[in-house]
Amino acid sequence: MSPASRYTYLGPEGTFTEAALRGLPEAATRELLPMVSVPAALDAVRAGEAAAALVPIENSVEGGVTATLDELASGEPLMIYREVLLPIAFALLVRPGTTLDSVKTVTGHPVAQPQVRGWLRNHLPEAHWESAASNADGARLVQEGRYDAAFAGEFAAGRYGLEPLVTDIHDAQNATTRFVLVGRPARPAARTGADKTSVVMWLREDHPGALLELLHEFASRGVNMMRIESRPTGEGIGQYCFSVDCEGHVTDRRVGDVLMGLKRACQKVRFLGSYPRADEVRPIPRVGTTDEEFVAASDWLTRCLDGRG
Amino acid sequence: MSPASRYTYLGPEGTFTEAALRGLPEAATRELLPMVSVPAALDAVRAGEAAAALVPIENSVEGGVTATLDELASGEPLMIYREVLLPIAFALLVRPGTTLDSVKTVTGHPVAQPQVRGWLRNHLPEAHWESAASNADGARLVQEGRYDAAFAGEFAAGRYGLEPLVTDIHDAQNATTRFVLVGRPARPAARTGADKTSVVMWLREDHPGALLELLHEFASRGVNMMRIESRPTGEGIGQYCFSVDCEGHVTDRRVGDVLMGLKRACQKVRFLGSYPRADEVRPIPRVGTTDEEFVAASDWLTRCLDGRG
Amino acid sequence: MSPASRYTYLGPEGTFTEAALRGLPEAATRELLPMVSVPAALDAVRAGEAAAALVPIENSVEGGVTATLDELASGEPLMIYREVLLPIAFALLVRPGTTLDSVKTVTGHPVAQPQVRGWLRNHLPEAHWESAASNADGARLVQEGRYDAAFAGEFAAGRYGLEPLVTDIHDAQNATTRFVLVGRPARPAARTGADKTSVVMWLREDHPGALLELLHEFASRGVNMMRIESRPTGEGIGQYCFSVDCEGHVTDRRVGDVLMGLKRACQKVRFLGSYPRADEVRPIPRVGTTDEEFVAASDWLTRCLDGRG
Amino acid sequence: MSPASRYTYLGPEGTFTEAALRGLPEAATRELLPMVSVPAALDAVRAGEAAAALVPIENSVEGGVTATLDELASGEPLMIYREVLLPIAFALLVRPGTTLDSVKTVTGHPVAQPQVRGWLRNHLPEAHWESAASNADGARLVQEGRYDAAFAGEFAAGRYGLEPLVTDIHDAQNATTRFVLVGRPARPAARTGADKTSVVMWLREDHPGALLELLHEFASRGVNMMRIESRPTGEGIGQYCFSVDCEGHVTDRRVGDVLMGLKRACQKVRFLGSYPRADEVRPIPRVGTTDEEFVAASDWLTRCLDGRG
Repeated sequence: MSPASRYTYLGPEGTFTEAALRGLPEAATRELLPMVSVPAALDAVRAGEAAAALVPIENSVEGGVTATLDELASGEPLMIYREVLLPIAFALLVRPGTTLDSVKTVTGHPVAQPQVRGWLRNHLPEAHWESAASNADGARLVQEGRYDAAFAGEFAAGRYGLEPLVTDIHDAQNATTRFVLVGRPARPAARTGADKTSVVMWLREDHPGALLELLHEFASRGVNMMRIESRPTGEGIGQYCFSVDCEGHVTDRRVGDVLMGLKRACQKVRFLGSYPRADEVRPIPRVGTTDEEFVAASDWLTRCLDGRG
Repeated sequence: MSPASRYTYLGPEGTFTEAALRGLPEAATRELLPMVSVPAALDAVRAGEAAAALVPIENSVEGGVTATLDELASGEPLMIYREVLLPIAFALLVRPGTTLDSVKTVTGHPVAQPQVRGWLRNHLPEAHWESAASNADGARLVQEGRYDAAFAGEFAAGRYGLEPLVTDIHDAQNATTRFVLVGRPARPAARTGADKTSVVMWLREDHPGALLELLHEFASRGVNMMRIESRPTGEGIGQYCFSVDCEGHVTDRRVGDVLMGLKRACQKVRFLGSYPRADEVRPIPRVGTTDEEFVAASDWLTRCLDGRG
Repeated sequence: MSPASRYTYLGPEGTFTEAALRGLPEAATRELLPMVSVPAALDAVRAGEAAAALVPIENSVEGGVTATLDELASGEPLMIYREVLLPIAFALLVRPGTTLDSVKTVTGHPVAQPQVRGWLRNHLPEAHWESAASNADGARLVQEGRYDAAFAGEFAAGRYGLEPLVTDIHDAQNATTRFVLVGRPARPAARTGADKTSVVMWLREDHPGALLELLHEFASRGVNMMRIESRPTGEGIGQYCFSVDCEGHVTDRRVGDVLMGLKRACQKVRFLGSYPRADEVRPIPRVGTTDEEFVAASDWLTRCLDGRG
Repeated sequence: MSPASRYTYLGPEGTFTEAALRGLPEAATRELLPMVSVPAALDAVRAGEAAAALVPIENSVEGGVTATLDELASGEPLMIYREVLLPIAFALLVRPGTTLDSVKTVTGHPVAQPQVRGWLRNHLPEAHWESAASNADGARLVQEGRYDAAFAGEFAAGRYGLEPLVTDIHDAQNATTRFVLVGRPARPAARTGADKTSVVMWLREDHPGALLELLHEFASRGVNMMRIESRPTGEGIGQYCFSVDCEGHVTDRRVGDVLMGLKRACQKVRFLGSYPRADEVRPIPRVGTTDEEFVAASDWLTRCLDGRG
């Protein structure tokens, strides 16, 4: 297939990222290419070797995926066109015939471990844990006989000739990972009315109220922030940029007005895209912040310039 | 003369308002018509009987001139095209030959009294004060022999056949009255770089932070407020509108952006004009609020919509 | 009677101020002394010649009573212990036997005129208005035959041998005047749960956000402002102090916290008292601002200092 | 030695954490015990098996150390008593006799890799990288002959019989890691005038302005925030707590006032301690926020309650 029909993703095969990607309708007609790391998946897009990449950006237990946040904030610009939410539940995968009593060693990705720790304590208190490079890699090691069981997505069982002994394992309620589909910069995804906009902002100066002023740009137009994360700029302790998601689409007047306010108030802003919200919630603009009210205010200003205000 | 060359002012002749009006270059070629009240002076403009009216709006000792503030906030819209600052100092006008020892009764406008009270206590502790309808009217009453002396502007002496016995009387240092030249709505005065903009705002709802939010519209664009006065709307105790002057001209991008923000956030806004500051101070815009930065932010938003942000 | 049982008020007899004062229960046992001006009424209290003074502070049509605001902001400190709201409705007082048809001349206080202008236009379009020194004085002049009718409070009729030809005259709905009972500084009035607190604040510096910061002191503790008025400090155009009423009593923790915040943030603050609200509305503190939450936060800080936070 | 003289740290031996710990004067008289993970190091303190633990909390290249942030925010409370800043520079450790030309395989902790990537590209473009469990572990694997070279602290060379072939390797200027010394809750470290205070805050409700209001608690008292990081609460995407460092000591009145404000405004606050700043910068309080001004405001409020305000 051509690069235009190729999607990369954070591999290997059999991970939750692949499961999230396969949930997208267009995945059926794309070549899905696992990559060894988030930077590798995104660099393939930058290089024109793939049309898009699906990478995790946020996990409700572990927090922001720093590799993704940092890649989106630096290097050649990329844009987000889609988000996918995937509830995270693990299956305990074993070779056919293995019983729970006989599981002495378990493996999985280091990130999985805190999410199944409670379950292990209750059901396999004696089992010994060793980390694998990925959940899929853990499954492979069970297939090879190195471990008795692996925590992975239930969907990974078949690929490695394993079977799910226990399913729906997760210590935290509502454990969810959020993935984003990233491509080269182009027109943002069309407005749906249930949209999200992402930006990265670098404060102009290290003064007490700088962050406060930026948050005011959002609040004063009634645009809710949905995620804010500080990331080091690499220029020393205490030097941050801020990665933010907010409600609404860049073509919503109130969101565009926020973006222009950020542009003026920040040393630098990077627009990361507007795209449909996976939860499909449609926010109701606060009074004074609808498109109609923005247009009316602009028209009124024009009339003021003619003495007809 | 035609109405187009007629200026009304708060009369009668011989008041500080007339003195302020005569300080304007174009006054020499206009018919200057004294009116009995601020509403009368402004209604003549509304009715097309005069091109403009000069009225006091603020006094550094007595505060806002409520008649002017209320007239500008209600009725047919009017706009301010010019401001004039006049230092206020009184002269004690007497009939020729009168000595200070022989002054037993003094008169003047009620507003003058608090501004000369200290001087009276020190120099004429025994004199009896009675109020007159205006400073000029007081001078007339001295001419008629009803009082021994009147406080008025030194310029009023000749008109009433009086002479100034003492000049430069003012209890407060820097006592100043600010006058505005008001006309029917038209294009605002041209931008000079040292400008002032006036608005009246009606809060949308009586919630704790409403005024705070409006002040933020100014502060977030670095636009300094120079005057703020609350005035009752007439709808009951606790119902106010706010009359505000701020730095800058409506064609300054940051000021236009503030005005649009007020328009959206307020129940109602009335634009009262942009005009040259009498003190000719040219404010330096805060970083992030110059016209160039506004244009750059707008251009950047446009590029974002094409994926070139 | 002794000064301790004497109340002064803005006279003369027969004005709305006297009517407001007589509405106070204790008025029956006090000597009520009319004074020629607000400063005179308040100076009698300062001098120990009266226990308290009742003066108007705010009118829903005309706005703040500047003489009262300025007297409270300067000179020897005074405090407010009570407020009274009086609906303002005028009666047209005439000599017995006068009919509406025969009224050719009317009088009243200048402040009354804008409040009855509409009624006059509709019912006595031909009548000639002249101002009197007070509403009561107008009534006296009708008694003396100088005018045919006077606008005044209905209660003034008997005192001057007049009768109310028309009652309940007021152009504006809900026209109300607010009066305050002022005494020398002492313990504030006891907390009722429906209280109001008054202060005057002088900003520390003339910087863009100074007023904004002060309003934030109120908003951040959920304390609603009920009135804000700027008054010139007398030091030149653009130099203001702010007179503010807010919800709550100085002994409410959130109000005390606001006051301390103002004290730190302002060049000067003058506490004008806490007193029962005439409208008896009891505000419900916002979550996080109850006395219990203030005490809990203070206790928690103490525990933090011991490592028990 | 007894637990009271034992310090744990994030092991193994030979890591930067051990180097940071050995920089503390008291380390010479303590038993220093490496632990396999941040939770293990902290749990030993919670269990009373050690007096304190040194763990990394922030890296100028990689950002917050989430294991540390999350452990401090949950479980049995702990407090920070000290911070240590360690410039991060790597040495390329090799077996004696190895030359740069002969290095075909290199190892190190995954976190090290992005910090030496540029150096590798320039000096060892052909070398193959594989990650090790820690920098120290990498050194051990070089000692065992599994790799030709390891990136680690220069101080680790001797322990593993290696020698530093190249030193002071770091792609980013000023790469620094910040470590904190954590113990069971007790009195905070004494105030030095150059202090830092750490808290974790859980917002009360998911409303647009909640974070803004918290930042205002800092800004309104002139207390600078030095670090802010959002961390998921584990209750679903979009649910965060905020980990914050600010200038000043809990016994500074302005900082105590901020903390009480946070306590009232937040659903929950956890005080993580006040301790000397490693950079020894002494902030100058903004006007209105000194201890003296806080005391003066409090005294004034007391006087207001007696009518002596």
